[in-house]
Amino acid sequence: MAVLAIYPGSFDPVTYGHLDIIERAQQIFDQLTVAVLVNVEKNALFSLEERMEMLRESTRQWSHVTIDSFHGLLVEYALRRNARVILRGIRAVSDYEYEFQMALMNRRLQPRIETVFMMPAEAYSFLSSRLVKEVCGLGGDVSEFVPPQVAERLKRKLS
Amino acid sequence: MAVLAIYPGSFDPVTYGHLDIIERAQQIFDQLTVAVLVNVEKNALFSLEERMEMLRESTRQWSHVTIDSFHGLLVEYALRRNARVILRGIRAVSDYEYEFQMALMNRRLQPRIETVFMMPAEAYSFLSSRLVKEVCGLGGDVSEFVPPQVAERLKRKLS
Amino acid sequence: MAVLAIYPGSFDPVTYGHLDIIERAQQIFDQLTVAVLVNVEKNALFSLEERMEMLRESTRQWSHVTIDSFHGLLVEYALRRNARVILRGIRAVSDYEYEFQMALMNRRLQPRIETVFMMPAEAYSFLSSRLVKEVCGLGGDVSEFVPPQVAERLKRKLS
Amino acid sequence: MAVLAIYPGSFDPVTYGHLDIIERAQQIFDQLTVAVLVNVEKNALFSLEERMEMLRESTRQWSHVTIDSFHGLLVEYALRRNARVILRGIRAVSDYEYEFQMALMNRRLQPRIETVFMMPAEAYSFLSSRLVKEVCGLGGDVSEFVPPQVAERLKRKLS
Amino acid sequence: MAVLAIYPGSFDPVTYGHLDIIERAQQIFDQLTVAVLVNVEKNALFSLEERMEMLRESTRQWSHVTIDSFHGLLVEYALRRNARVILRGIRAVSDYEYEFQMALMNRRLQPRIETVFMMPAEAYSFLSSRLVKEVCGLGGDVSEFVPPQVAERLKRKLS
Amino acid sequence: MAVLAIYPGSFDPVTYGHLDIIERAQQIFDQLTVAVLVNVEKNALFSLEERMEMLRESTRQWSHVTIDSFHGLLVEYALRRNARVILRGIRAVSDYEYEFQMALMNRRLQPRIETVFMMPAEAYSFLSSRLVKEVCGLGGDVSEFVPPQVAERLKRKLS
Repeated sequence: MAVLAIYPGSFDPVTYGHLDIIERAQQIFDQLTVAVLVNVEKNALFSLEERMEMLRESTRQWSHVTIDSFHGLLVEYALRRNARVILRGIRAVSDYEYEFQMALMNRRLQPRIETVFMMPAEAYSFLSSRLVKEVCGLGGDVSEFVPPQVAERLKRKLS
Repeated sequence: MAVLAIYPGSFDPVTYGHLDIIERAQQIFDQLTVAVLVNVEKNALFSLEERMEMLRESTRQWSHVTIDSFHGLLVEYALRRNARVILRGIRAVSDYEYEFQMALMNRRLQPRIETVFMMPAEAYSFLSSRLVKEVCGLGGDVSEFVPPQVAERLKRKLS
Repeated sequence: MAVLAIYPGSFDPVTYGHLDIIERAQQIFDQLTVAVLVNVEKNALFSLEERMEMLRESTRQWSHVTIDSFHGLLVEYALRRNARVILRGIRAVSDYEYEFQMALMNRRLQPRIETVFMMPAEAYSFLSSRLVKEVCGLGGDVSEFVPPQVAERLKRKLS
Repeated sequence: MAVLAIYPGSFDPVTYGHLDIIERAQQIFDQLTVAVLVNVEKNALFSLEERMEMLRESTRQWSHVTIDSFHGLLVEYALRRNARVILRGIRAVSDYEYEFQMALMNRRLQPRIETVFMMPAEAYSFLSSRLVKEVCGLGGDVSEFVPPQVAERLKRKLS
Repeated sequence: MAVLAIYPGSFDPVTYGHLDIIERAQQIFDQLTVAVLVNVEKNALFSLEERMEMLRESTRQWSHVTIDSFHGLLVEYALRRNARVILRGIRAVSDYEYEFQMALMNRRLQPRIETVFMMPAEAYSFLSSRLVKEVCGLGGDVSEFVPPQVAERLKRKLS
Repeated sequence: MAVLAIYPGSFDPVTYGHLDIIERAQQIFDQLTVAVLVNVEKNALFSLEERMEMLRESTRQWSHVTIDSFHGLLVEYALRRNARVILRGIRAVSDYEYEFQMALMNRRLQPRIETVFMMPAEAYSFLSSRLVKEVCGLGGDVSEFVPPQVAERLKRKLS
C-alpha cells in the first residue's frame, strides 16, 4: 500500500514554514507531491514556472518529493494522481477553521481522499508567504524566513 | 518504509467518532495501534480490560489495526513501539488548541515522532465519550453514538 | 402558534447577565420558562428551593415568565412541556463552541426542538455565577452583578 | 404578540444551508421575511431579481415566509417593517465572532430589535454561497449543496 | 528609564475605541506616540493630514501624547524613535490571533522592541473604523462612536 | 511617574515561560512585583514558601523585580501596593478569552488598574506549570522547561 500525499498551495514563494512541513511529511508518506495551484484570478508575484523552480531547488534533497501543478478542483486532481491524502499545514486556530471547512467540502466532493493536518515548528508558526512579501517590500530582511535563492528573487522583484 | 501510527486515548468507552477516525486512518497508515491510556488518577467508568475489549470487538474488521495499552509518557511508548506517527482526531476549534499544545510538547520531548490530525465525519463532530456517558446516565438513548455492545454495557453500568 | 421557550441553567445564583437575557427573550417568545437544573453531582452553593426563589423574586415584573425545575435530559423535559425552543445566552467565543456541541447533541436526541442563542448586553459579557461567587468569597462587592436580595444571600452564605 | 423575524443576507445564491435555517425558523416565529441585501459595491453573481426569484422558488412550501429586499441600514429596515428579531445562522466559531460584533453594533443603533442565532444541520456546517460558486466555477458538482433550479442557473452563469 | 510606546494604526478615522486605549496607555507609559501608517496601497477615506489632524484634535488633553506618521517597517520606525514598546488594542479573539502573529514577526525582525496588548472598554469592543464608515455611509448616526468633529467630517465625505 | 506592575500567578512551579515574561516586562516597567497567589482551595504541589524561594532564585539577576504573595482579591492587593498595572502572559487564543474576562471583571472592580498582556517567546508557547508537573510525574525530562534548581525539586517531589 504505497500512499501518495498531495501538498497543495500557492507557494508564492515557498517559505521555511512550507519546507518544514515537507521535510516532516516525506518521512511519513511513501510519496509526496507538492502541487502548485494555477490560480488565474489571484495576482501572484511569481509566475507558475518560477514558483515550481524555487520549490524544486529547495526540495531536491528529498528523493520522494516531486513538484507538480494543477488547476480546477483539488480533489479531482488528487483522484487523477491516485492520491489518498491531501496534506495541509496548520499554524494557528484561525487557519484551522478555514482548513476544516475546506476539508469537509473536499470530503463531500470526493469521499475517498482524506485531509491530514500537520504542524510546522513553533519558530515558523507566524510565517506566511504574504507576510514575507510585505516585509521584503518594506525593505526588511527576510533571510530567516525563506531559502537564500528565494530571498534573492524576492529582492529583485520587489525593489 | 512501513509506517506505524499510534492513536492514543482513554476510550471510556469507544464511540462512533473514534471508529470513524480509525477507519479513515487504517487506509492511510501501514499499521495502526489504538493505545488505551492507563490513567491511574482519572476515574474511568470502564476498566482497562473492558475498554480494550470493546475496542477489539469494534475494530476486528480492519486487519491492520491492533489494540494496546500504555502508561507513562506517550512519546516514550511510541518510541518503544518504533512508531513514527501519533494520530489525533479533532472535532472542533477548542479541541484543536489543546491538541496543538500537546503536540508541540510531544515534539519537544521526542522530535522523531510527528503528530498528525484527522477529522471525523461532521455527523460525529459533537460526540465525546463524556457526553455519551452523561446522556446515557440521564436515561437517553445512545444507540446512534456507540456500537450496540457498547450501548448495552453503558446501560448496565449506568442504571 | 404559541411558542414556549425553555431557558435552562444552574442559576447558582441568578446574575444580571441571566436577567438581561430573560428580559430580551420574554419580548420575543409567547411564554418563557426558566428551568433550574437539578444537578445531583455538582455542588451547588444554593439549594434548588433558594435558586428558584431568587429567580421568582427577580422576574416577577415579567408576566410571561415562569420558574420551573427539571432533572434528566433537557430535551425530554422540553418535550413534556411542549416547548419548541431551548434558549441559551452566549457571552464569548469559548462559550459558543461548547453550546454548539450541546445544541447538536440535543437536536440529535430530539429533532423537533430548536436551540436559539441570544447575547447579553456587553456590560455583562464577562459575568458568570462562578465568578460572582469567587469575588464575593474573597470579600469583593458584587452589587453590580446580581440583584440586591441575591447579593445579601451571597454574603450570608460566603462569610 | 405576532413576532416578525428578518433573515437578512446576500443569498448569491441561496444554498441548502440557508433553506435549513429558514425551515427551522418558520416553525418558531409567526412571520419570517428573508431580506436580500441590495449591495451596490460587492459584485454579485446574480442580479437582485434573480436572487429573489430563486428564494421564492425554494421557499414556497412555507406559508409564513416572504421574500423582500432592502438597502441602507438593516436595523432601520427592520424598524420600518415592525420586526422584533434579526435572525442569523451561524456555522462556525469564526462566523460567530463577526456575527457577535454586528449584533452588538445593531443593538446599539436600535435597542428594540434583538439578534437571534440558529444553527444549520451539521451536514451544512461548511457550506457558503462563495464556496458553492467556487466549486461550480471549477467544474464541480453542486447538486448536493443547492436546489436543482439554482444548480442549473449556476452552471449557466459559470461555464 | 523613560519608556516611549508607539501606538500604530491607520486611524481612518480615529474612534472612541482608539481614544479609550490612548487614555489608558498614557497613564502607564512615560511617552505615547500615536503613529499613523502611510499605506500607499490601501484606499484610505481620509488623507494622512486629515487623519493626523483628527487625532491631534482628539488627544490634546493628554500632555504625554504626540501624533506622528511612518512608512516602511514598523519596527524600524520604532527603533529610530528609540521606542521600547509597540502598543496594540485588542477587542476580540479573532483580532488577537492576527495581532499575535504580527507581534511574533516584529519580535523576530527586532528583538529589542516588545508588543504589549491592552483592552478597550467593553462598550467599544465591537467598534472599528471600517464599521463606522459603513454605518455612516448607509445614513446611520455615528455620534456614539467617534468625537463630534470626526462625525461631521465623516458625514461630509460620505454623503 | 514610576509605574509598578504586578505579575500574579500560582507559579507552582515557575517555568522558563514565566521567566521569559518577567525578563521582558522588567525592561518596560519601573518596578515589577511577581505576586504568588495564596490559594487555599487548590492543591499546590509546592508550599507558598517553596514557590517564592524558587522565584527568588530564578529572578535575582533583575534588580527591579521583587517577589511577594497575596490572598483575597487581586485588584485590592494591587491597590494597596499602589500598582497601576496587572501583567499577564498569554500563550494562546484559549488563554486569551479567559484572561479577557478576568481583566474586564478586574477593571469593573477597580477601574484605576489596567491589565496589560505580553507574549512569551514562541518556544514557550505551549508551556504550563501543569504540563511540566505531568511530564515530570511520568518520568520525562523537564530540564528544557524549568531552571535546574526547579527541575531538581520537581524530581524530588514527584518520584
